[in-house]
Parts: sequence; C-alpha cells; structure tokens
Amino acid sequence: MDNNIAKKWKTLSGDTNWKGLLDPLGPDLRNYIIHYGEMAQATYDAFNSVKVSKYAGSSRYARKNLFSRVGISQGRPLNKYRVSKYIYATSSVAVPDAFITKSLSREAWSKESNWMGFVAVATDDGKAVLGRRDIVIAWRGTIQTLEWVNDFGFALVSGPKIFGENNNDDPKIHQGWYSIYTTDDPRSPYNKTSARDQVVAEVKKLVEQYKNEEISLTITGHSLGAAIATLNAIDVIVNGLNKPKDMPNKACPVTVFAFASPRVGDSNFRKVFNSQTDLRALRIRNASDVVPNYPLIGYSDVGIELGIDTTQSEYLKSPGSLSSWHSLEGYMHGVAGTQGSKGGFKLEVSRNISLVNKHLDGLKDEYGVPVSWWCEKNNSMVQQEDGSWELIDHEDDNFGQ
Amino acid sequence: MDNNIAKKWKTLSGDTNWKGLLDPLGPDLRNYIIHYGEMAQATYDAFNSVKVSKYAGSSRYARKNLFSRVGISQGRPLNKYRVSKYIYATSSVAVPDAFITKSLSREAWSKESNWMGFVAVATDDGKAVLGRRDIVIAWRGTIQTLEWVNDFGFALVSGPKIFGENNNDDPKIHQGWYSIYTTDDPRSPYNKTSARDQVVAEVKKLVEQYKNEEISLTITGHSLGAAIATLNAIDVIVNGLNKPKDMPNKACPVTVFAFASPRVGDSNFRKVFNSQTDLRALRIRNASDVVPNYPLIGYSDVGIELGIDTTQSEYLKSPGSLSSWHSLEGYMHGVAGTQGSKGGFKLEVSRNISLVNKHLDGLKDEYGVPVSWWCEKNNSMVQQEDGSWELIDHEDDNFGQ
Repeated sequence: MDNNIAKKWKTLSGDTNWKGLLDPLGPDLRNYIIHYGEMAQATYDAFNSVKVSKYAGSSRYARKNLFSRVGISQGRPLNKYRVSKYIYATSSVAVPDAFITKSLSREAWSKESNWMGFVAVATDDGKAVLGRRDIVIAWRGTIQTLEWVNDFGFALVSGPKIFGENNNDDPKIHQGWYSIYTTDDPRSPYNKTSARDQVVAEVKKLVEQYKNEEISLTITGHSLGAAIATLNAIDVIVNGLNKPKDMPNKACPVTVFAFASPRVGDSNFRKVFNSQTDLRALRIRNASDVVPNYPLIGYSDVGIELGIDTTQSEYLKSPGSLSSWHSLEGYMHGVAGTQGSKGGFKLEVSRNISLVNKHLDGLKDEYGVPVSWWCEKNNSMVQQEDGSWELIDHEDDNFGQ
Repeated sequence: MDNNIAKKWKTLSGDTNWKGLLDPLGPDLRNYIIHYGEMAQATYDAFNSVKVSKYAGSSRYARKNLFSRVGISQGRPLNKYRVSKYIYATSSVAVPDAFITKSLSREAWSKESNWMGFVAVATDDGKAVLGRRDIVIAWRGTIQTLEWVNDFGFALVSGPKIFGENNNDDPKIHQGWYSIYTTDDPRSPYNKTSARDQVVAEVKKLVEQYKNEEISLTITGHSLGAAIATLNAIDVIVNGLNKPKDMPNKACPVTVFAFASPRVGDSNFRKVFNSQTDLRALRIRNASDVVPNYPLIGYSDVGIELGIDTTQSEYLKSPGSLSSWHSLEGYMHGVAGTQGSKGGFKLEVSRNISLVNKHLDGLKDEYGVPVSWWCEKNNSMVQQEDGSWELIDHEDDNFGQ
C-alpha cells in the first residue's frame, strides 16, 4: 500500500476531482480517507471534556505524544508526522455549550478558549511513504449531535477576514463557523490571535520552510470541524497561503476531507469555492446523518460528495441512532466497507470494527466490545504513594513553541 | 495507629459490643471499620459487569493482585493479607439481573455463576499490625439500588443447611439471601458446591492451619453482601466453624461489619443471632438509605447499629440520591466524618473524598473530581502491535487452588 500512495497521492488527493474513483471506491483511497479521518478523530480522543477539571477544553496530551496516545501510530504506515502547532479558538457570537467546553474550576487553564485542532507536517519518513511533504490541518468538531446545528442559527455574513472588504463575487458564509474561525480575545493567552491567524502563521512558516520540496496541504475535520476546515481551505487559497512568498507560481494543492459537514455558505460561496484550480474538497456523507442537511435554507454544498450508508453494515446495531449515524468512527467504518451504488457492505480494507464503539453503543453485542470504551485509566485519577488519589489529566505542551 | 490496633483489636472487633464506642466514634474504630469496608468495596471494584465480555460476572483480577489492583495496598498499613480463595455463587430462585450478571457471549466463562467475594488471611506482617491472625470473608453486593430488594420478594424460609432440620428456636430467614448462599449447580464448574460450602471448606482449612495462633474471623459486605455476611456469620457459629477440630474450647471471635444491610430474618432469627457469645455484628446504616428498611414486614434487625448521616457532609452534593445514600464509598465517607448525636460532619481520619465519586456523581463539583471515574484504561480494550484493539479484561486465577 505505502508504495501505491507515494505514487498515486495526487490522484488520491483529488487532482482529477476523484472522477471515477468513488464508485466503486478502491482500497488505496479508502485507506487514504481513513488516514485523514483518524487525524480528525485524534482531536476528539485527546479532548478533555471533564467540566470539573481545570483543564476542561484542552488537549490531554502534548503535541509530541498526540498520535501515539490516541493510538494512531501503532500499525499505521502513513502516520509519520510531527505535530507542529496546537490551534485554540474562541467565539464572539454566543455558541452552544456543545462547542465551547467551559471548566468549572476557579483555576481553569483558560476561561475563553478551547483546543480546536492542530497543524502537523510529514517527517522525512512520512514524506517517503506519502510521496510529498504533506501539511495537515485537523479541526475538532463537537461530539454532541444535532441540537448545536440549530443553536448556532443560520445567519449568513460576508466574511471580510477571508474575502476582503468588497468582494465582487459576494460570497456569504455561516456566521457561527466564521466567528469561531476568526475571533480573537485579548483576555485569553490562547486567543490573543484568532484560530485563523494561528493557522495562517503556522502554514506560512511551514510553506516557507519546505518551499524547495513538493508540498501538499490537507485540511480535515468532522461535523463543525469539517465546516471550519472548508472555510480554512478557501482562506488559504484566496489569500495565497499555499505559495511560498517569493515563488508565486509554486502553488501547492489544497485538499479538504470533510466528514459529516454541515453547510458552510451560500451559492456565491459555492461558486467561489468550486472554481479554484488548486482546491478540492471531498465531502463524506452518511445517508442517515442529518447534520449535512443543515442549515436547511439559503445554503449550498461545495466540493464532491462521497455517499456512504452505515445502515448497510451488518456489524452495527440496527437501525442505529442520530449519534451513531453522525459519529466519525462510524463514518470511517462506512468508508472501509461501502459498496457504493452496488449496495451492501463489505470491509474492503482492514479496519478494526471495535473502533466504532469508542464513544458509542454502535456495534452489535455479539462482537463483545464494551460500549463507549475510550477513557484514561480511572479517568485520570492517579493513586499517589500515600494511597490518595489525584486528577492528573494534562501533559504540558510548550504553548507557542 | 497500627500499634493501637494491635492492642485494641478485641474491643474494636466488638468484644464489648462496642458499648460507649460509637458516639462519639474514635479515630481507631473509624479506620478499622473503613479497613473492612474497603475489603467489601474491592468486590465491586474488581467485578466485571460488562455484559458483552465473556468474563462478565467474574473478577477482573487474580487473587494475588486483587488488593493492589483496586488500590487498597498503597498507604494502607492494615491491609496485609493474602487472598486465599475466591467465592462463586448461583441461585435456585429467580434473582434479578441486578444480582446475577450474565455474559452475552457464547463463550462465557460461566453461564450460571458469579464471582461473589473472597476469603483472605493476614500475612505475618498483617498479624503484627492487626494483633492476631485475622481471617476476612468479604461478600459482594449489588451496585444497583433498590429495585432489587423488592424483586427478591420477602418469603421467609427455615434454612436447614444452616440451622439443621428441626431447630427448636425456629429461626426464619430471607429466601433470596439463603438461596444465593446455599445453592449449588452441577452444570457450573464454579458451583459444583454452593458459595456456603466453598467458604465453609476454606474457613475450616485456615482455622486448622492457624489453630495454634490467636485467630479472628471478620465477615463483611455491603447491601446484599451484608445480608449474606450476616447469614455466613451465624452459620459459622452455629456449626462451630470458628473452632479447630480437636480444640472445641478454642472458639475464635466472629465479627460482622455489615454496611447498608437489608434485613435477613425474623424475630426468632434475631434471638438466635444476638444470643451467641462469640458473635458480634455492627450494622452501619446511613440515615437516608432506604435499603436497610427492607423487607418491611416480618423482619428484625440483628447486632448493633451504627448510624451515620451523609447528608450532613458539606463535601457531597445536596440532597443526594437513592444511589449516593446507599453507596459503600459514601458510607465510608460517612464513617470517616460522622459526629454522631452531636450532629454535623468533620473528617476525623484521613480519607480521600475523591473516592466517593468512584462509581457516583456524589461530590460537589468544586472538588474537581470526575464523576464515576473508576475504570480500566479504555475499559480494557488494549491496542496490539499491529494497531488493532482487543478486549483483555481478565487475569487468570488458578481456580480451586
């Protein structure tokens, strides 16, 4: 497989807009999509959602340990990256609890910000298997389902921080996604600059650093994270961040893998997005998942859609639920087994079915996998030498380094 | 403290029926009760209740690791015991799911039996701090609350396996408790003999083995486990198991620490129980816990009652709930802090408040302790070298050794 990917990465990343590649889906593309899905999944698995913890809303793990701690180093030939930057976000519009997790502790690490994702760059080993120096940006979504989509409202705004003040194409985007992406907050050490500005700075740095190599930018996320990934991608293109400063002709391709994405903008936004030469987006969408239908009115889909249908999987409890249809691990299971228009389900690449139950009661009982099994031992309560117990649920990361 | 216990153990174990010792409660007795409470708690913390596991209903840990795995070796000067025997139980009357946990797996370790507790004996070091060779029997209860008490019904039976066929005192006991204690099942390798017979054999063996030393028998349990401990204790006395075979005058004292016990028998049972010279029982009862009120009709309490009231604790969420009032960790918190008839609450011995939240949402949020934090890492899903995940939730124990 590795070898295939190095040779075929441009196609897998959509240089022909995945024409003829999605139905049926070949094993390399399945593995490739799952590879990026696991990056997005890492932002959930590392996220500290325990409200009584002073670290609620942050990553449990330092950048250097992230992939090993969430279990995507072991047995993953493609996952050879260095996490170079953690991204933090806040919002100026009221956002539902489902998005910003606030610590109840008086000594909270941050009162305004949440860990929102990361930037990673392929190591030399990674470059060898991936065929180029891949830069990944992964955005966290929200584990909760549904209500949050409506809670955000559906107001469309013009997005000047991305498109400038007077854009002739007049693209309009979702106020909530835009707010999370672009809001800074001088009170928060983690958001003196917005999530956008943090990512922009890091991408500029890496694109400069590797300007003499072949580079790609891959942006991924699930749910809310997929919407932000989509905004982030058009931002990168519109503002030329995919080009080294003094090499305006050396644009690197930008690819979005958007899992379970709600809609992002209006038809003008769609026009702008879909007309960019160096930009491709694959929207993976599960038939029964309702999140991709929202907001219902005034919005258009961008990129290419890959339909899956996890209700066809004989591994999963039937009929499932709103949360199982929306779950990212469920999506990856679907990508591994979808048979497209042929119908039915068969795992075409090796993907542990037990992962479906990480945060879910999704697998049939007969597979003997505990429900929602993902957790630290004793939820990070650690016994001390004197026998007492302490919450140790955070690894220090040199923020800003 | 250690030294005190070695000197005062007879009093602490109730040779004066705890007269004058319960209000106020001294620090040594608090620690002593908690010491045995932790033995009972071990049966919960080690219990595998994951129904999809083939090991549902068994202990996760081998005997030799039990106390360290459940965190009651570290910083516990009194806990120096060797677990010599695991006890298994089944039932001939229909018992609620809350009691017998049945594996859904076709390869279940047992279809009929559940791990029900253990026998442990003080090591030489333990003997030194405890003042004698203490033999502990700990019985598992049920973590669920309440419904199970009524589900069991409240029929009274005569209990011939304990009291013989024609007992003049005519004691009557609860059919459900008696069934669990005395039922064997030839189909189950774990219950070719009943829980009772397993314990009887082990106690006989240990009492013989240590017949030239000073011995004590301490029987403990919580909830259903407390009821069984009470039956077990009268059984030991009535059948002379607290005496070496050839030394009928060397009866060792038998003490019950019964936490949150439902009632066990009628007034005749009470008469028989309370008139035994070598038998004492301390029933610890939380004011708001309803389980000790059941069964409501036809039953009498035995032994001495130690009242606590966890609603007085400023550490706990107010007003609490049926499950927080009944929880064994809640009881131990109560024992550590009760001020008796004086009222109020103050921790008089060092006991980590975080333990209250092991299986509960009981502590106030301000203490920053996660809710129901007790679990194995990833609920025993373990990543293999190839990156896949397997459920490894059982340590082999040489059953019968």
